[in-house]
Amino acid sequence: MTRSHTIAILPGDGIGPEVISCALEVLDAAETRYNFTTTRTEYAAGANHYLETGELFAEVQGQLRGADAILFGSMGDPRVTPGILERGFILEMRQRFQQAANVRPVRLYPGVPTPIAGLTPERCELVIVRENTEGAYVGQGSTVHAGTPNAVAMQESLNTRAGIERVVDFSFRLALGRRKKLTLCHKTNILVAAGQLWQEVVADVAKRYPEVETDYVHVDAMCFHLPLTPERFDVVVTDNLFGDIITDLGAVIQGGLGVATSANLNLDGTAPSMFEAIHGSAPDIAGKGWANPSGAILSLALMLGHLGEGEAAQAIEAATVEVLGSLPALAGADMGATTAELGTRIANIVRSGRA
Amino acid sequence: MTRSHTIAILPGDGIGPEVISCALEVLDAAETRYNFTTTRTEYAAGANHYLETGELFAEVQGQLRGADAILFGSMGDPRVTPGILERGFILEMRQRFQQAANVRPVRLYPGVPTPIAGLTPERCELVIVRENTEGAYVGQGSTVHAGTPNAVAMQESLNTRAGIERVVDFSFRLALGRRKKLTLCHKTNILVAAGQLWQEVVADVAKRYPEVETDYVHVDAMCFHLPLTPERFDVVVTDNLFGDIITDLGAVIQGGLGVATSANLNLDGTAPSMFEAIHGSAPDIAGKGWANPSGAILSLALMLGHLGEGEAAQAIEAATVEVLGSLPALAGADMGATTAELGTRIANIVRSGRA
Ligand SMILES: CC(C)[C@H](C(=O)O)[C@@H](O)C(=O)O
Ligand SMILES: CC(C)[C@H](C(=O)O)[C@@H](O)C(=O)O
Repeated sequence: MTRSHTIAILPGDGIGPEVISCALEVLDAAETRYNFTTTRTEYAAGANHYLETGELFAEVQGQLRGADAILFGSMGDPRVTPGILERGFILEMRQRFQQAANVRPVRLYPGVPTPIAGLTPERCELVIVRENTEGAYVGQGSTVHAGTPNAVAMQESLNTRAGIERVVDFSFRLALGRRKKLTLCHKTNILVAAGQLWQEVVADVAKRYPEVETDYVHVDAMCFHLPLTPERFDVVVTDNLFGDIITDLGAVIQGGLGVATSANLNLDGTAPSMFEAIHGSAPDIAGKGWANPSGAILSLALMLGHLGEGEAAQAIEAATVEVLGSLPALAGADMGATTAELGTRIANIVRSGRA
Repeated sequence: MTRSHTIAILPGDGIGPEVISCALEVLDAAETRYNFTTTRTEYAAGANHYLETGELFAEVQGQLRGADAILFGSMGDPRVTPGILERGFILEMRQRFQQAANVRPVRLYPGVPTPIAGLTPERCELVIVRENTEGAYVGQGSTVHAGTPNAVAMQESLNTRAGIERVVDFSFRLALGRRKKLTLCHKTNILVAAGQLWQEVVADVAKRYPEVETDYVHVDAMCFHLPLTPERFDVVVTDNLFGDIITDLGAVIQGGLGVATSANLNLDGTAPSMFEAIHGSAPDIAGKGWANPSGAILSLALMLGHLGEGEAAQAIEAATVEVLGSLPALAGADMGATTAELGTRIANIVRSGRA
């Protein structure tokens, strides 16, 4: 019997549809080669859809819930007030679908140029796990005496034992299957209450994983450890806001946002997980064929791995890395091929079974 | 009549005393050459003093208040619980002395190796101004149901119109004397209340500085703009926590914590400003002569500029840059000279008036 998966596709805005169309071509190739099928449904979501209909996540939530996984392009458009799509769609999905862990591999692939002098692929193979539902992302804050000289804005960060524990436990399990090292990244000397809770949970959960070594690094210090000594890290677990910041730094190290990818994992099976490249919608280059589809294709690989298609996932990753390593530039007019051509090139390698 | 300044010296812990002693040798040279005098008083502060006496900032506050400026080494020791000295001394000084602006120049000096491939000194000449008294640094947060599965930790960030305005106004003035560009760094799409207040204040104050162009960058995006396109920035203003993070990234770009320096400026004349290198106390290399005194000596230069000794400040900076550019390594056993030797070398150049 052929394995089958139901996938929701959200191409979104800007370069999203271009890179997702490449990912789907690669998915076709993987299905042929690795003997599984997918039922795909595409959903309109993002800036255009919002401007036409006013619809955000709430309206599509019911339809998405039945999918085994969600493949996401990118969202954002200068015509929409900043924050609307981010909070109304992306954060709403993370919340409603309890996508508790935002997993971002930081790998320097062979042949991909890194801006960090002297960094080699062997030294850069880590995963950052970001808590994805709470912390400073819980609300919009509040302001008293707005518009007066006495205005005071309060922004709260809420951290629950349960929310931290599920992502910390996930991170330990991840580390167990890797180099067995977990680093907590926080700012415990200043954010005392939240910091203590994070440290407490890590210490408690560590007892269940005696083989995993634990370590701690302040978020400011992470800014030099991550680029200069990434070999120090295996799995890094951190809160929502710090994760937002340090994963972008991670992406820089591995050659840029175009290459980086992420999984927004639901850990309790109540809703689908979502997979997306880290790059934004890049409206300035949309439609030009200048976008690098690698981020989206690597997120497809993450998704297939998650769905149990490990062989296909590995083949897609290997094919992408092979093509990435051959490019004269990672994006733009000098990439040496269009977005679509790169998609086809990667799909062909996957189909050939050569990777 | 010779100009005279009263300076409080706080060598602190670890490598602090070593690098401060170099800075004082350079100060001697500058006084001779540039015809001013200082009255210096050294205060015991830091881990040893705390372990012996239990004293933190409160006990020395009265004595420090009369100084024209404070020269600070570094603080921290593994024997003291993390957070005690940071909150009890460093943050307490920033608060009590209303050192509202933490100013951190990010300059790549010629000859200093940067880990960022292809970065050149002309492209890296910016200043980060960090709000230094509020935001997420206001308190310790609070926890309900601590120690139970229902524990929730709340961490608040308080942002006042007055607190933001003074540091934003300072940043505009700074930009006016430079390349006339001010960039706000925040996360306005998520931290809505605080973000709006910051944006509002920048927009309002901008009206008083029509020649200064303003720009905005999210803190996560800053992680790639800062290393990859630092030429985009002239003055960057940001909140306390984001400033803590991105200034460490700035230090990496300019060659490491050993080179970076900072001013904690009191802007209303009610208390002295404080000047310090960005590096920590590095207890692992203390006493070995492996510490690079440049950060401390450059903070002396910042201090002298602040006290109106512009010529001396420039000479010290130039001498430090000259010596920095000649080192085989920026710190450690391979630095090619001891901490003290480097101090003497820089002092000699300053005394000779050659720089
Ligand atoms: C778009 C935005 C809401 C989002 C975030 O802040 O989490 C993005 O920066 C990310 O990292 O996925
Ligand atoms: C020591 C610590 C309290 C401090 C901070 O967080 O502000 C340090 O990291 C800094 O940047 O000066």
